[in-house]
Amino acid sequence: MQSPSNANVIAALEAGGTKFNCALLDTELNLIAQAAFETTTPAHTLAAVRDFFRQSVAAHDAQLIAMGIASFGPVDLMADSPTYGYITNTPKPGWSNTDMCGYFARELNVPITFDTDVNGAAWGEKVAGSARDLSDFIYVTVGTGIGAGIVVNNELVHGIRHPEVGHMLMPRDQLMDNYAGCCPFHLGCLEGLASGKSIESRWGVSGKFLKTDHPAWLLEAQYLALMCANLTQLLAPQKIILGGGVMEQPQLLQMIREYFLVCLNGYGPAAVLEQTESYIVKTNLNGMAAILGIAALALSQLAEEPSKR
Amino acid sequence: MQSPSNANVIAALEAGGTKFNCALLDTELNLIAQAAFETTTPAHTLAAVRDFFRQSVAAHDAQLIAMGIASFGPVDLMADSPTYGYITNTPKPGWSNTDMCGYFARELNVPITFDTDVNGAAWGEKVAGSARDLSDFIYVTVGTGIGAGIVVNNELVHGIRHPEVGHMLMPRDQLMDNYAGCCPFHLGCLEGLASGKSIESRWGVSGKFLKTDHPAWLLEAQYLALMCANLTQLLAPQKIILGGGVMEQPQLLQMIREYFLVCLNGYGPAAVLEQTESYIVKTNLNGMAAILGIAALALSQLAEEPSKR
Repeated sequence: MQSPSNANVIAALEAGGTKFNCALLDTELNLIAQAAFETTTPAHTLAAVRDFFRQSVAAHDAQLIAMGIASFGPVDLMADSPTYGYITNTPKPGWSNTDMCGYFARELNVPITFDTDVNGAAWGEKVAGSARDLSDFIYVTVGTGIGAGIVVNNELVHGIRHPEVGHMLMPRDQLMDNYAGCCPFHLGCLEGLASGKSIESRWGVSGKFLKTDHPAWLLEAQYLALMCANLTQLLAPQKIILGGGVMEQPQLLQMIREYFLVCLNGYGPAAVLEQTESYIVKTNLNGMAAILGIAALALSQLAEEPSKR
Repeated sequence: MQSPSNANVIAALEAGGTKFNCALLDTELNLIAQAAFETTTPAHTLAAVRDFFRQSVAAHDAQLIAMGIASFGPVDLMADSPTYGYITNTPKPGWSNTDMCGYFARELNVPITFDTDVNGAAWGEKVAGSARDLSDFIYVTVGTGIGAGIVVNNELVHGIRHPEVGHMLMPRDQLMDNYAGCCPFHLGCLEGLASGKSIESRWGVSGKFLKTDHPAWLLEAQYLALMCANLTQLLAPQKIILGGGVMEQPQLLQMIREYFLVCLNGYGPAAVLEQTESYIVKTNLNGMAAILGIAALALSQLAEEPSKR
């Protein structure tokens, strides 16, 4: 962890609902310094992040040239919106209408690249993970909530918001599963049926405490398999990469693949049907995907439009 | 319908399961000549198309510079595949493994641009329809089958196949709808529950003969609304454009919009929730979308890689 004197460096922030992961990287995406701060209030957490970056840049006698922020949401990514760069109406207490971009642009005086946490992580898979050399893939995190970053034709999908895969409405068999779902908007959407929060609400205990042969995992694998099947039919990606706390259950990945083939029932691209083990995979970036992805996005944005930002 | 002597012209073919629509266009996409041929056998239909283009090019003393083919499927769009440009394993008798691109490249001796019928139609909406100036939108045809062309960041989505929105697995209420579905692979996927074929199979009569207040249309609107909701959550497009025979039912569009808002239940981009009437629309290209779209794609491919093709 060292950098040449006055080297250009990038600040990368993964702003999560539980903690804010910070990293200072050189322009080859090597790690120079790292820290994490609990997500308390915007005033406290943002100041801690700012101080870390100021101090670590100074300690390494470096020049901060850009910052990337991969944030929990919902966030406003519309460049022409008055609340661009904000966390908008989040259920996280105290964090609604937080001007993430504005704060760090002011305090650190650098151009900011802003995207969702899952878009950051998806891009990280392209830069350093299982999606290197892929033009079309999907990264899904299954944790407290469910979110996805989608890459099509080598570009992240944003549309007029950003993908909200967690709110896909799902097929279900009410004889097998009579739990209503926990989404405050849709009850039984994907997130309402298969997020870490829904597991806890359905079984009365966090998934961490459920044995690997608990029926919870059968249902979980079914819903995630249905998700993978629908993503495959809609977008025919080259790979689906799964991450997040729920995916740390070691038995889950193979069950998802098996149910996935049941869902497709022979109808799908040959590569998907025949090489499911390399099609549906787990992230191997050990929690660094969003940091690496958003740093790479910040770097490429700097290269694209040095004068505009 | 006239062209200057020796003007450059484009051949556009919309290859459908019922008929093959052919059009000769100038480089401004003005129509020069048009014809349609019944889809019988590949030998007969392809020869009729070839003869039409040869004769109409000669009759206008024009120079054929490219051809675009928007075809029913499934088709092979993978440039490095040995069956690139083929209709592959279609249920349409006699048409499996038909080398569409190869035939016309040989017979008309021009570079061929090949895509799905719905990708052609989607691009037609961008060139001449309701998606002009849009970077992210979806065109869905609801006819005998259900298919979609998806545009993200100004490019068509292909992935490793092409979107098969019709095979999205759907939420359903079996108390409201105990019809199993007609998809040979998935029974109750979107196409199995909401295609023209499923309407006929469910009610024992073609949708054309069902009154506008028949309960068939309630179910149909529900399923298409669920589809629009899931497409919205996944891709946040600027617009969803609906076409195809089933959408000719005049009562359907407004019912879909209303159920769509029920499905979202307040969770969606503001523009979608507040301006649903301009978000979910019907095509207004009167069946010309695929012809215009594939001609435009052929032209732009020619501009991009004049030496490669």
